[in-house]
Amino acid sequence: MIKKNEQTITSRIDELANFSKPGLGVTRLPFTKQHKEVLKLIISWATTSGLKTKIDHAGTLIMEYGSDSEKPSFLIGSHQDTVINGGKFDGIMGVLLPLIAIERLGDIKLPFNIEILAFADEEGVRFPTSLIGPRALAGTFDPYVLDFADNSGLLLRDSMRDFGLNPNEILNLARKEKDTLGYLEVHIEQGPKLEKEGIPLGVVEAIAGIERHNLIIEGVAGHAGTTPMELRRDALAASAELISLTENVAKKSKSTVATIGSIQVEPNIVNVIPKQVILSLEIRARDDRDRLRLASDLKKKMTFITEKRGVKFSIKKTYEQRASHCDPNLTKLLEKSLLDIGLNYNRVTSGATHDASAMVELCPISMLFVRCREGLSHNPNEYVSENDMELAVQTLQRFFVQLADEYSNT
Amino acid sequence: MIKKNEQTITSRIDELANFSKPGLGVTRLPFTKQHKEVLKLIISWATTSGLKTKIDHAGTLIMEYGSDSEKPSFLIGSHQDTVINGGKFDGIMGVLLPLIAIERLGDIKLPFNIEILAFADEEGVRFPTSLIGPRALAGTFDPYVLDFADNSGLLLRDSMRDFGLNPNEILNLARKEKDTLGYLEVHIEQGPKLEKEGIPLGVVEAIAGIERHNLIIEGVAGHAGTTPMELRRDALAASAELISLTENVAKKSKSTVATIGSIQVEPNIVNVIPKQVILSLEIRARDDRDRLRLASDLKKKMTFITEKRGVKFSIKKTYEQRASHCDPNLTKLLEKSLLDIGLNYNRVTSGATHDASAMVELCPISMLFVRCREGLSHNPNEYVSENDMELAVQTLQRFFVQLADEYSNT
Repeated sequence: MIKKNEQTITSRIDELANFSKPGLGVTRLPFTKQHKEVLKLIISWATTSGLKTKIDHAGTLIMEYGSDSEKPSFLIGSHQDTVINGGKFDGIMGVLLPLIAIERLGDIKLPFNIEILAFADEEGVRFPTSLIGPRALAGTFDPYVLDFADNSGLLLRDSMRDFGLNPNEILNLARKEKDTLGYLEVHIEQGPKLEKEGIPLGVVEAIAGIERHNLIIEGVAGHAGTTPMELRRDALAASAELISLTENVAKKSKSTVATIGSIQVEPNIVNVIPKQVILSLEIRARDDRDRLRLASDLKKKMTFITEKRGVKFSIKKTYEQRASHCDPNLTKLLEKSLLDIGLNYNRVTSGATHDASAMVELCPISMLFVRCREGLSHNPNEYVSENDMELAVQTLQRFFVQLADEYSNT
Repeated sequence: MIKKNEQTITSRIDELANFSKPGLGVTRLPFTKQHKEVLKLIISWATTSGLKTKIDHAGTLIMEYGSDSEKPSFLIGSHQDTVINGGKFDGIMGVLLPLIAIERLGDIKLPFNIEILAFADEEGVRFPTSLIGPRALAGTFDPYVLDFADNSGLLLRDSMRDFGLNPNEILNLARKEKDTLGYLEVHIEQGPKLEKEGIPLGVVEAIAGIERHNLIIEGVAGHAGTTPMELRRDALAASAELISLTENVAKKSKSTVATIGSIQVEPNIVNVIPKQVILSLEIRARDDRDRLRLASDLKKKMTFITEKRGVKFSIKKTYEQRASHCDPNLTKLLEKSLLDIGLNYNRVTSGATHDASAMVELCPISMLFVRCREGLSHNPNEYVSENDMELAVQTLQRFFVQLADEYSNT
């Protein structure tokens, strides 16, 4: 028996945002106390609404509307985690809105099960990997990443165990394609396009591919007062050249963005010439060939620069996700649902990666973007209006009904 | 009654080096457990040798050979602290060698008191300030720095209190010029010149001036996938330009070195465009005018670069020490002492700052450099031979005797 929750959507978003480390905005990293607590709240809502819940060994919360093992499942969801000092909407909104849509569906019978998913880790902030949950479902999870450590030196494997999971079970979570109708993800746009067009919701055509690397630059430490400039092998001065190179090369390309977002320097003190620098490099492009071309160009030029300076250089790929294309049929259903509730829509490309980027290995995917103020995201000032979220919920209700119609007719 | 210690100098250096945070080399920061413990060992040695000891409210350990308040004092010493992962000799050797020289002097009467000093903080690594001890004695201590915090947010004031000191008493430590005959500091060279010349000991003519700044670069955070390159205000990309500029400007100048040794980035994660960067900048030169000219040139060019990029920039001086010249008379006595024990010597300039740089405000200063292997310093592989340290001790013994002769004759 489905019960309705009378809170506004915004007040529920605010309630979810309470589960954060202290500080600006929301900081909720995977496999932490805050992660555990936010799942508890979502489970209490789902249970009140009559859904069955469980947490799988990848840390994904699964809320089932219907659990007939004879029927296939349609999956819908997003991630619970945020970046450090992130916003209230990125990720978690894509868990809440389907839950509300289901609450409103009441007790209608569907010819398939719906599973709402709250994945543990999409941002890849705590560990140098991400998308464990969707990869587990898609059967593409590589257990190698379990030995990656967070900044405190704790292994992913151990942090998952502390969370009550058994990482050895992850490989058994893979779903079968024939049991899975598709995956839909609702997410904030994280860009300014919809707002500029005055349109609340956008239908995603494709998700940019992405690769991440660790660059290690090794020079020689020395006293900052007694080492002449011409004898220095300063790892930070070399890194500065690599950062400028990356910016310039990406600026020249029209189709690709590249970012050096993190830097660690040893020993990082005022009067010692830096000995070692580790940089993160991220490259994204809609077209995988553009991305690969830029990565190879950067690597060649970086090798040249560092050799000339007499510092050691190595580059190690830590992550790669090909560009993904949304399913034409699900996309069409989504557009029809939007028209049904009287909305225009834009087709957009997602520069950001999403859980859908991994789910594409399992089943047809689709994505619905919700307009956000000033395109702001990964920022405490991230904002989506109550009205736009309400329209997204109505779209989802229409989408489920239409999907049921279509499924019954095939 | 003075007792002789039968250990080798090297074994005593090794014993002192045990007081370190775990990790490569020696890490002994001021006002820490390791600082407290190393002082305990030195005090036990000094007490065994019949010296009176006390710790003043700036954290300086004072070991007195003679304490006749009618007589002036000659001061000799160096600092107990190291950089992070530093060596065994930098600083502490300049406390140990005078102690050994005094042990060997036996019970001869001198017409002045000798005070051996172990200053708390010369490296300026834990707090963005240094030389509290010698500045306290010289009457140039600025209590403003007591509100500076270390990386954990602890104020210098509070860390000194936790150490058992009363920072309000520091201003009362100032010595009178007429009570102070002079200051001598023994230190490793921290450069390759003496080794290249095959000479164990060098007499310092001057110490380079130094200034340090915090540079704050403020851009705008943003999603690394959805923010086009041309709309970014990336604080790290801007900082890269400033680092390269600093290197290039200092390379062109013949007389000046400049180093950006530390960097802090917010939020410092792979998929967020860096919002804020704080860089340390250090400039050193023998000639103060060269240093000031380079600093002003850098500031102008940095302002231009950051304005062009639309990021905010501010520069704040955190430290300044003018170049210092050693006293001709003490220098001559030191050279005579070297000749007496059959050594040649070189006159050298110190690129590094020293406690002597602050003591020059109180009294005539002099410095004796000891050759170190490959010029290595601020490095776990820092090394000085037993033989070179032995020669330095013999030089000090001669120096005290000659100073006594000279003092009696004036």
